[in-house]
Amino acid sequence: MNANPGGWNRAMGLSFVRVSADEVVAEWQVQAQHLQPYGIVHGGVHSGVIETLCSVGAACHAGAAGSAVVGLENHTSFLHAVRSGKLRARASPLSRGRRTQIWEATIVDEGERKVATGRVRLLCLPADGELAGQKIDVRG
Amino acid sequence: MNANPGGWNRAMGLSFVRVSADEVVAEWQVQAQHLQPYGIVHGGVHSGVIETLCSVGAACHAGAAGSAVVGLENHTSFLHAVRSGKLRARASPLSRGRRTQIWEATIVDEGERKVATGRVRLLCLPADGELAGQKIDVRG
Amino acid sequence: MNANPGGWNRAMGLSFVRVSADEVVAEWQVQAQHLQPYGIVHGGVHSGVIETLCSVGAACHAGAAGSAVVGLENHTSFLHAVRSGKLRARASPLSRGRRTQIWEATIVDEGERKVATGRVRLLCLPADGELAGQKIDVRG
Amino acid sequence: MNANPGGWNRAMGLSFVRVSADEVVAEWQVQAQHLQPYGIVHGGVHSGVIETLCSVGAACHAGAAGSAVVGLENHTSFLHAVRSGKLRARASPLSRGRRTQIWEATIVDEGERKVATGRVRLLCLPADGELAGQKIDVRG
Repeated sequence: MNANPGGWNRAMGLSFVRVSADEVVAEWQVQAQHLQPYGIVHGGVHSGVIETLCSVGAACHAGAAGSAVVGLENHTSFLHAVRSGKLRARASPLSRGRRTQIWEATIVDEGERKVATGRVRLLCLPADGELAGQKIDVRG
Repeated sequence: MNANPGGWNRAMGLSFVRVSADEVVAEWQVQAQHLQPYGIVHGGVHSGVIETLCSVGAACHAGAAGSAVVGLENHTSFLHAVRSGKLRARASPLSRGRRTQIWEATIVDEGERKVATGRVRLLCLPADGELAGQKIDVRG
Repeated sequence: MNANPGGWNRAMGLSFVRVSADEVVAEWQVQAQHLQPYGIVHGGVHSGVIETLCSVGAACHAGAAGSAVVGLENHTSFLHAVRSGKLRARASPLSRGRRTQIWEATIVDEGERKVATGRVRLLCLPADGELAGQKIDVRG
Repeated sequence: MNANPGGWNRAMGLSFVRVSADEVVAEWQVQAQHLQPYGIVHGGVHSGVIETLCSVGAACHAGAAGSAVVGLENHTSFLHAVRSGKLRARASPLSRGRRTQIWEATIVDEGERKVATGRVRLLCLPADGELAGQKIDVRG
């Protein structure tokens, strides 16, 4: 697991439970910073957590070959509105190619009811690649 | 514009520039809470800001008829990685039906370069509807 | 199973194996009408077969309550290019609400390798609804 | 324009109006092979035409650099059901990078009403690449 979770993951209070190239699991307690104006969890929190988990898993797989990954597309479906409690997300790979990967993640509430699910397509970058004008620093 | 921006929008420092049933514009300064571990803006921030703007626009349109909206699907494409600066997002409707709406939003950096773009499909709910076990409170 | 498969399904040579409100399975032999100019199966065939199976399953579920469904969004991911052979698609529900449903379908080749996978969000329409200017005829 | 339109495009009766690295336009007359069982144009026809146009445009752009493209993701939104008439689709690029491209296409009816719109992410392949076990033949 990355020693540096990144500012967004920290702001969202995301806590990693398991991290590997085959599966990533994380959870968080619903708090004020997760809500949209109606008082339910903001769809962007679901999309973002799905983005995090799929990226972390894909990075584990790519990192074993010395490369990095960057997200191309995130498609998230919202299944049930939720107001409170602990949420848990689990990601697993659909395809892990040399050039791209695609991962899928699903978020459930404490009663194991699916609240959101999504897929992220990621591009594999060469180890000596650049991203937004800087060498990729995969140390996190 | 909603007096209550919601906890997520506040945590992200999102500032609304224009809000109507035809267009929503907002901007934010990239800070630590927007970054993923490589030091670039987290894809979930883009997905989330797109979700916010499309939802706010759709809610304006639905609200005129006394109804509310809830997001069904968010599909976001990442175009360029960005590390810092001020970002601006603009949403406009693709279709505003009685039963569903679909909005599109694009995020640009200070040089007007597109960094992300996405679409959100929303369901229109009756004014007396319920969401996650509570009456919808459209006062925000 | 619908006595009228529809012109597109017939043009594609799609053959239904199982049809229920819980699962839909169909298969087809790759032929000229499925190919794009490079000689591989056209992505639109995968998207279309996924659309068919998810719609048929959702219609089975909605039909039991006297209503119909119409597709809102189709998101398909392409995993492996394929040139020939028999392909098989299987769809199952992710969420079957009163107002919308979301189904997922995956296509595999003869070696059970996943070649494409996608999700379709559908809107449930009242039994007496209209679609493109005509009463919905759910008899197919 | 490719001398070989591919079997699917031919089966769908798709006729190209303009083809360049900046814009692709095509049209078709709605016929039996485009319909689903309710008698409206099958969503897969929209997804497939969008796939075709975005791929052709991206291939034009990549071809100038001696490379080819292959579709990764297709996300199509259905806006209005349509039963008959001539449909016209137009695609334009959202981003044309060295490694991936993303194109957007919209389909309108004879009254210029939008009936479907979608986005396709494509991967750029090296000129000497392989696809499904064969050298890519970009001559079509």
